[in-house]
Amino acid sequence: MPYGDAMTARARNEERRAEIVRAALEVIAERGYRGASMAAVAERVGLTQQGLLHYFPTKDTLLVAVLKERDQWDAVPDGRWRLELLAALVEYNAMRPGIVQTFSALLGESVTEGHPARGYFTERYRDVRSSMAATLRSEYGDRLPSGLTPERAAPLLVAVTDGLQYQWLLDPDSVDMPAAFRDFLVLLGEAE
Amino acid sequence: MPYGDAMTARARNEERRAEIVRAALEVIAERGYRGASMAAVAERVGLTQQGLLHYFPTKDTLLVAVLKERDQWDAVPDGRWRLELLAALVEYNAMRPGIVQTFSALLGESVTEGHPARGYFTERYRDVRSSMAATLRSEYGDRLPSGLTPERAAPLLVAVTDGLQYQWLLDPDSVDMPAAFRDFLVLLGEAE
Repeated sequence: MPYGDAMTARARNEERRAEIVRAALEVIAERGYRGASMAAVAERVGLTQQGLLHYFPTKDTLLVAVLKERDQWDAVPDGRWRLELLAALVEYNAMRPGIVQTFSALLGESVTEGHPARGYFTERYRDVRSSMAATLRSEYGDRLPSGLTPERAAPLLVAVTDGLQYQWLLDPDSVDMPAAFRDFLVLLGEAE
Repeated sequence: MPYGDAMTARARNEERRAEIVRAALEVIAERGYRGASMAAVAERVGLTQQGLLHYFPTKDTLLVAVLKERDQWDAVPDGRWRLELLAALVEYNAMRPGIVQTFSALLGESVTEGHPARGYFTERYRDVRSSMAATLRSEYGDRLPSGLTPERAAPLLVAVTDGLQYQWLLDPDSVDMPAAFRDFLVLLGEAE
């Protein structure tokens, strides 16, 4: 096969994989991961189940790809986070309820027994808490105006972000997620 | 049937129903609601599926009973909530991970399409936000020390409670949920 054709085949393969991951995101948003079937994902992209298995041999390998997609979501190099940037991310998320729904459903499931995403979320939250502590330290130094250390405020910053997503997904007309997140920054000590 | 016997039969029936609800709480904690089967619940209480259907004719009627149990959880008469009491509730919850796991899993699932608990959670969060706003008002008046109104701080109080539960369930050794909740009260304006 000439070089050019090989590249095209690889690009086509990558594109197909991306399309499958997008379909999986939708199916998980609708049914959760445990409720998602490979058949439903295959159908959505017009593949047979056998065809789908060519790209992702098991449901769990597809989950890994979905979680990698999650990592892209807030991929800001460590030390480059600012509170203002976080507020902008929450604003952006409010424009894509589908993807927020996928990951809120996955987080909820991850606390059930033996869930395949449990290890991922456990590790991710450790990283996020430590990265948020570093962000708060660069903003406020060793003490926030309230007297809390960055390490003690970080889990709260993460918790409020997740908790607001559930309230907003359930009731978008009653909960202004980006405004509520900015209110939390006021509690941390930002000027209103 | 003499009156006494009828009461005994009713009491026995109630006790059996309570036992089934406890089993359902466990099964949901392990597998989520969509993953929970009536067969698994029946097995756990030593009933046939047919026997279980005598008490709860459908999986959704069992869910309703589980959600009523949830309502008992933080059943404090409106206007009697105090922030100190909330902190005590979080402390209490930290001693019963099983039940926190059940409801964190249910909340996560509730944002998926057509979930039978979605209406319940939507309405519950409206109530809880308004009850928390009233609590904050009785503590601080019309403005918190940060300048936020009770209505703007209430969704944050609720969000942080839910969000901390996920972090704690995933990683109980790294997250001290009751201490983190008290830290949030410091952000609201309580003395440390």
